[in-house]
Amino acid sequence: MGFRPPQFPTNRISMTDDQRFGLSRHVTLPGPLRLDGGVLLSPVDIAYETYGTLAPDGSNAILICHALTGDQYVASDHPITGKPGWWTRMVGPGKPIDPARHFIVCANVLGSCMGSSGPATINLATGCPAAMSFPVITIRDMVRAQAMLLDHLGVGTVTLVGGSMGGMQALSWAATFPDRVTKAVVIASTARHTAQNIAFHEVGRQAIMADPNWRGGDYYGEGDPPAAGLAVARMAAHITYLSEAGLTEKFGRRLQAREAKSFGFDADFQVESYLRHQGLSFTDRFDANSYLYITRAMDYFDLAEEHGGLLANAFKGSRTRFALVSFDTDWLYPTPESRAIVHALNAAGAAVSFVELSSPFGHDAFLLDAPELNRVVDGFLRAAL
Amino acid sequence: MGFRPPQFPTNRISMTDDQRFGLSRHVTLPGPLRLDGGVLLSPVDIAYETYGTLAPDGSNAILICHALTGDQYVASDHPITGKPGWWTRMVGPGKPIDPARHFIVCANVLGSCMGSSGPATINLATGCPAAMSFPVITIRDMVRAQAMLLDHLGVGTVTLVGGSMGGMQALSWAATFPDRVTKAVVIASTARHTAQNIAFHEVGRQAIMADPNWRGGDYYGEGDPPAAGLAVARMAAHITYLSEAGLTEKFGRRLQAREAKSFGFDADFQVESYLRHQGLSFTDRFDANSYLYITRAMDYFDLAEEHGGLLANAFKGSRTRFALVSFDTDWLYPTPESRAIVHALNAAGAAVSFVELSSPFGHDAFLLDAPELNRVVDGFLRAAL
Repeated sequence: MGFRPPQFPTNRISMTDDQRFGLSRHVTLPGPLRLDGGVLLSPVDIAYETYGTLAPDGSNAILICHALTGDQYVASDHPITGKPGWWTRMVGPGKPIDPARHFIVCANVLGSCMGSSGPATINLATGCPAAMSFPVITIRDMVRAQAMLLDHLGVGTVTLVGGSMGGMQALSWAATFPDRVTKAVVIASTARHTAQNIAFHEVGRQAIMADPNWRGGDYYGEGDPPAAGLAVARMAAHITYLSEAGLTEKFGRRLQAREAKSFGFDADFQVESYLRHQGLSFTDRFDANSYLYITRAMDYFDLAEEHGGLLANAFKGSRTRFALVSFDTDWLYPTPESRAIVHALNAAGAAVSFVELSSPFGHDAFLLDAPELNRVVDGFLRAAL
Repeated sequence: MGFRPPQFPTNRISMTDDQRFGLSRHVTLPGPLRLDGGVLLSPVDIAYETYGTLAPDGSNAILICHALTGDQYVASDHPITGKPGWWTRMVGPGKPIDPARHFIVCANVLGSCMGSSGPATINLATGCPAAMSFPVITIRDMVRAQAMLLDHLGVGTVTLVGGSMGGMQALSWAATFPDRVTKAVVIASTARHTAQNIAFHEVGRQAIMADPNWRGGDYYGEGDPPAAGLAVARMAAHITYLSEAGLTEKFGRRLQAREAKSFGFDADFQVESYLRHQGLSFTDRFDANSYLYITRAMDYFDLAEEHGGLLANAFKGSRTRFALVSFDTDWLYPTPESRAIVHALNAAGAAVSFVELSSPFGHDAFLLDAPELNRVVDGFLRAAL
């Protein structure tokens, strides 16, 4: 058919102790995976965790999709930080997503840095980490890679659950593999990135790329990654994950443990110290190039655009049952973004329930203790099709 | 009385062509100015512009206070960019603030980089630019320096007008020199910085200080200032000056002049290109250390805290007439911040009018074409005391 997309040969991720990224359960699939950008990715590495057992009729599979800086350790201790999984409030014995009842899969997304193919992956053609020669990926590329993993695991139909970028994947799953998605839970998410969303991500990317240690992305062998730039990127993003009211409640203008202002540039205010810690600790567990690639994928995400400019087209004839949840103080993906999805699903004749929950914690609410969220997800997952 | 604050000897600002900072009308006052941080600043350099003539009875003086990255060129061409003054919509012949009727003063704030004492000022003790040895300043310090300038110019009572950080100065003026301020116009401002305000500024400061060219602040002789860090700081801040709706209207998800996404990391979206331009062009006209000092002053600002924790105390017995203006899409200093000031003024028995104006442009609205704002300011300035 004329143009043959370039081959992009990859291999198992190569991580040194110095980089401090962990390894988890891992599969190398031959692919090739045809990416939205036109590149054929082959092979495709996917690192993932599973919990529970697949029912003989295959009806109990749940794929959990993680957010920008998340990973496959949804309910397992993180190999680098040693902290519990990022969603143990939702996933675990007695929780809405329960290994006793469900076969739970969570895979590190394409482009990330916890074992799936990404910029730290060795490029077989050069023997070096791909860095910025790794192809730009999309949310749909992440989804297609996950579909390959489910094929490999013998999972046919599946329930999708995701918050934030995880919700984008759940939506993209329902649009890309409509016959395969029985239910989709989309939390604190959006069907497209707005100009403001893109702007915040661009600040983060520029912060990374302005760090001389970034070296055009080729920093893997140097033992000196662009941590300062990545920390600034994380700090800027972190503000968008919290509500103004939540920040005020948590920190207000309270000073650090000293009696008065220092009249200097140390962290005087608790919120400064908190942000600096968020930025620095992030650099211990995340790869700057992955941050570039995943934010790019999110900025490119516009489900309507992929379907002739009309979001309802993405769900035409869908038999998936959807549950949408937003939080009233989330200003990153505020309630109107969820409502626009609900309207499109209604227009497409799809089954959808929607609730806006109240929380002081902004976008991050979906990761925190939210009993109402648990009740909503539990009820939805237990309901018959 | 015991402790004698350290002397901080300064001299006329020393600027090289390389730094591309302009000189404007300028006075060196002996001082000393006792700063809130305890340092005695002496002498005190102030660069300023005036328009119009002081009336024989001294009743027509208006002091305009500029915002974080503003300067004294309120209605004069900027010496570096060549652009018209930053508030020619409000100040000029036939405008609400009119040289034909008013004696208009606008001074570069203490800590800034357009000729007033700041981190680029030569420290007489060392013969080098002060850099981070310049004392940390407050909004009230800026105000006290302006009062010294007005003394020098023979101005007694005065009307204060300011937006954003300019509004903070107007409030601080009314609280610090109650007998001297006849009227105060406070636009899109706040009486204190919230945790979220501080957080955004801290991101900017960390971006600057993470730039290796910052060199602990000692970059003046190097010809290689921390432009990359300053650009990132400006980009992050700039997002807070615009509304989400305004960004969507102006850019949405529109691509640059190409047909499709690049699947690369160039500026694909117009909003990315716009932000990059905002960041880069800013570094041509602003000093990174000044950005650190002025953001710090803003973060320290809490007028209630300076008055026993009760904002009304700041205005007790005030005979100043206040006009407060907010914009409905301003999420940096949203309407409730103005309303809190109005409540405090009411509690103090001060005369105050307040209006929330509608604009799609967020915080930046006060700098843009806003006929309603002009009508409000004009009416207020013309009204008899």
